[in-house]
Amino acid sequence: MIQADIITIGDELLIGQVLDTNSAWIAAQLNMLGITVRQITSIPDTKEAIVSTVQESLNRVSIALITGGLGPTKDDITKYALAEMFACKGWFIDEKTLQHITEMLTGRGIAVGELNKKQAEVPDCCKPIFNSKGTAPGMWFEQNERVVISMPGVPYEMKAVFSNALPLLQKAFLLDKLYHRTMLTYGIPESTLAETIEGWEDALPAHMKLAYLPSPELGVRLRLSAYGEDYEVIEEEVAREFRKLEPILGGCIYGFDEESLESVVGKLLKSKKQTLAAAESCTGGTVASRITAIAGCSEYFKGAIVAYSNDIKEAFLGVKSSDLMQYGAVSKEVVEQMALGAVKALKTDYAIASSGIAGPAGGTSSKPVGTVWIAIATPNGVISQKYLFNHDRALIVSRASAVALNMLRLAILKENEA
Amino acid sequence: MIQADIITIGDELLIGQVLDTNSAWIAAQLNMLGITVRQITSIPDTKEAIVSTVQESLNRVSIALITGGLGPTKDDITKYALAEMFACKGWFIDEKTLQHITEMLTGRGIAVGELNKKQAEVPDCCKPIFNSKGTAPGMWFEQNERVVISMPGVPYEMKAVFSNALPLLQKAFLLDKLYHRTMLTYGIPESTLAETIEGWEDALPAHMKLAYLPSPELGVRLRLSAYGEDYEVIEEEVAREFRKLEPILGGCIYGFDEESLESVVGKLLKSKKQTLAAAESCTGGTVASRITAIAGCSEYFKGAIVAYSNDIKEAFLGVKSSDLMQYGAVSKEVVEQMALGAVKALKTDYAIASSGIAGPAGGTSSKPVGTVWIAIATPNGVISQKYLFNHDRALIVSRASAVALNMLRLAILKENEA
Repeated sequence: MIQADIITIGDELLIGQVLDTNSAWIAAQLNMLGITVRQITSIPDTKEAIVSTVQESLNRVSIALITGGLGPTKDDITKYALAEMFACKGWFIDEKTLQHITEMLTGRGIAVGELNKKQAEVPDCCKPIFNSKGTAPGMWFEQNERVVISMPGVPYEMKAVFSNALPLLQKAFLLDKLYHRTMLTYGIPESTLAETIEGWEDALPAHMKLAYLPSPELGVRLRLSAYGEDYEVIEEEVAREFRKLEPILGGCIYGFDEESLESVVGKLLKSKKQTLAAAESCTGGTVASRITAIAGCSEYFKGAIVAYSNDIKEAFLGVKSSDLMQYGAVSKEVVEQMALGAVKALKTDYAIASSGIAGPAGGTSSKPVGTVWIAIATPNGVISQKYLFNHDRALIVSRASAVALNMLRLAILKENEA
Repeated sequence: MIQADIITIGDELLIGQVLDTNSAWIAAQLNMLGITVRQITSIPDTKEAIVSTVQESLNRVSIALITGGLGPTKDDITKYALAEMFACKGWFIDEKTLQHITEMLTGRGIAVGELNKKQAEVPDCCKPIFNSKGTAPGMWFEQNERVVISMPGVPYEMKAVFSNALPLLQKAFLLDKLYHRTMLTYGIPESTLAETIEGWEDALPAHMKLAYLPSPELGVRLRLSAYGEDYEVIEEEVAREFRKLEPILGGCIYGFDEESLESVVGKLLKSKKQTLAAAESCTGGTVASRITAIAGCSEYFKGAIVAYSNDIKEAFLGVKSSDLMQYGAVSKEVVEQMALGAVKALKTDYAIASSGIAGPAGGTSSKPVGTVWIAIATPNGVISQKYLFNHDRALIVSRASAVALNMLRLAILKENEA
């Protein structure tokens, strides 16, 4: 298995001024090529840091991909550090790069200066890699079957150089194939999920690896990665392993990869040409904003009533004043009336309703902060459920919205079965 | 000068599935504390990688801050690697964490399992650091005046633990006093703002540092940091510098530090005992969700109509069917009727309305994707404005919501002046 390190160079990364997006992009590309990334390192623009970090990488892995420090200014020293490290004897002008620089500058009406010419100069022990989007060429160094690829730090320039380094990489190394797929689950906490599928996880073949990725919006995602020689074989192997989870996890599985609760709900509604509304109190528009984040949602989503005050619950959703008095807004009676009222007023097949205490104030001993009632109106009635979330305001709203979308998903599946 | 390394642990970082935002955030915090970051390293969830990377860091710097690998599942091994590295003799249950876990799970109706209890267990050679946002505590290890701080990988949990580690850091190392305050501006692009305040910025004293922090939700924030021996002196110095910006930036300044457009609007409404509603089409509930993110908003926010379909615009907001036909939903006529309709139907003093094309489909040559109309109904009429945002769906919604809240803010200020 070919292994690589990624090294990003620049003081701006170490003071947190610039977010390093290059590493994740390069890592994803290498991953798809079947190259395993062992380490990502961000270091300052100093010769000592560059030389020692690259040297350590070459002791560990076959390929070091470097970004940054190739600009024309004094603080850009990557080229000189690498030339010294590889004991280069001299420098040459890369004619293709010089021509490109000349064209770029002439086009902007600027004369080619000494600093610009220096940009086209590379150590004689490297192979220059053309940079179609900028003035600094990439560089390919090779020694004892280990490779160092130096690329600019500006993301679009880095990508341009990477695409030209790719054929060189594919030629120099025989690459293993890697496949991974993520199964999305909702409704089981991470630790319970881990206990539930422990037997399955322990029985996974050695060339597969499982990761748990929890999030308040998406539930717990299970990412399964597999290595092998034949892409289609490992793809089928991963599918086979995931199929074994279906009887174990059942309805907790809601999708794969880039899907979300709201996209899955949208697909279900679209396929039956059914429509949806929302009546939100404590979630305050968050359920609607998640639903409308999906492109094309206007096919099934008609709208929502954010009924923050009781007046609105009565006037727009037909909640009974006497029930608000008797049971309070955060109650089974009221949330069910909200859901049924939304279906009726907005003329839809389904509706989500929420009513709860998001805090930090407003809690009582019988209804503490975090108490949330969710109701789902379906073409055949209404169901409701009480939850207690122990978080701050933002997380209570986030979890209540996710739980509501998941309840809707399960309700639609049940209706479709019936 | 105190030096630190940041180490982020997780296979998901090395395949490029998750972007490491923790490192930049921590680096920025340390930088403000006067701690220099020497290296940022991302490594896989293996004991060898964790032990060797942390050991290398402690040879180089005084502090290693680690995130990730603290979950309850088999792939989370940071705790065990550190216990081995520091040659801990045993384990103990952190009672505060166990109580917190028990409360969190009981609230969700889940029994505390063995894996959950294990989350509260820490090596006896560390000081646990409370995690108010999750189940895994942070850990503080100390040896030969070198410190290792282990934090969760989930960003909001990491931030919660970091805030509790801060006093320990300040006590263990002699850190310069640092004060910083952030001025919030909306309505001037970053580059224009930089040009506008260039003279002021150049004249700042040497012990002050300015940072531009742009965000689609908050506008451009100006963070001014000052170092010194006396906290009150530097606080007053920063206030004096910010006051100089008032005549230059005027109404573009909307608040400081943790305020937001929605919190400022809330304060304005509360002080006059006035009320607000929203009528959202393209923003799909996002304006309402921002307003209701503010604790205590029920004092001034009555609710919203998310009128995604034209039926809802007519039925709930009284938009004229003929105007929808003649001008289309994305028009001055319709968005103003939406705002006025919301004020009338929800019986409020103000209303925000939005109608636009969030894309990716639905654009035309005269109304391309990104066209958004915003209207604000006030006690004395209605104002509206057309915008063109050149972004993807999520950013169009985000920018439209921010612009709408800022228009409301300016409208309230104008009404209060009159």
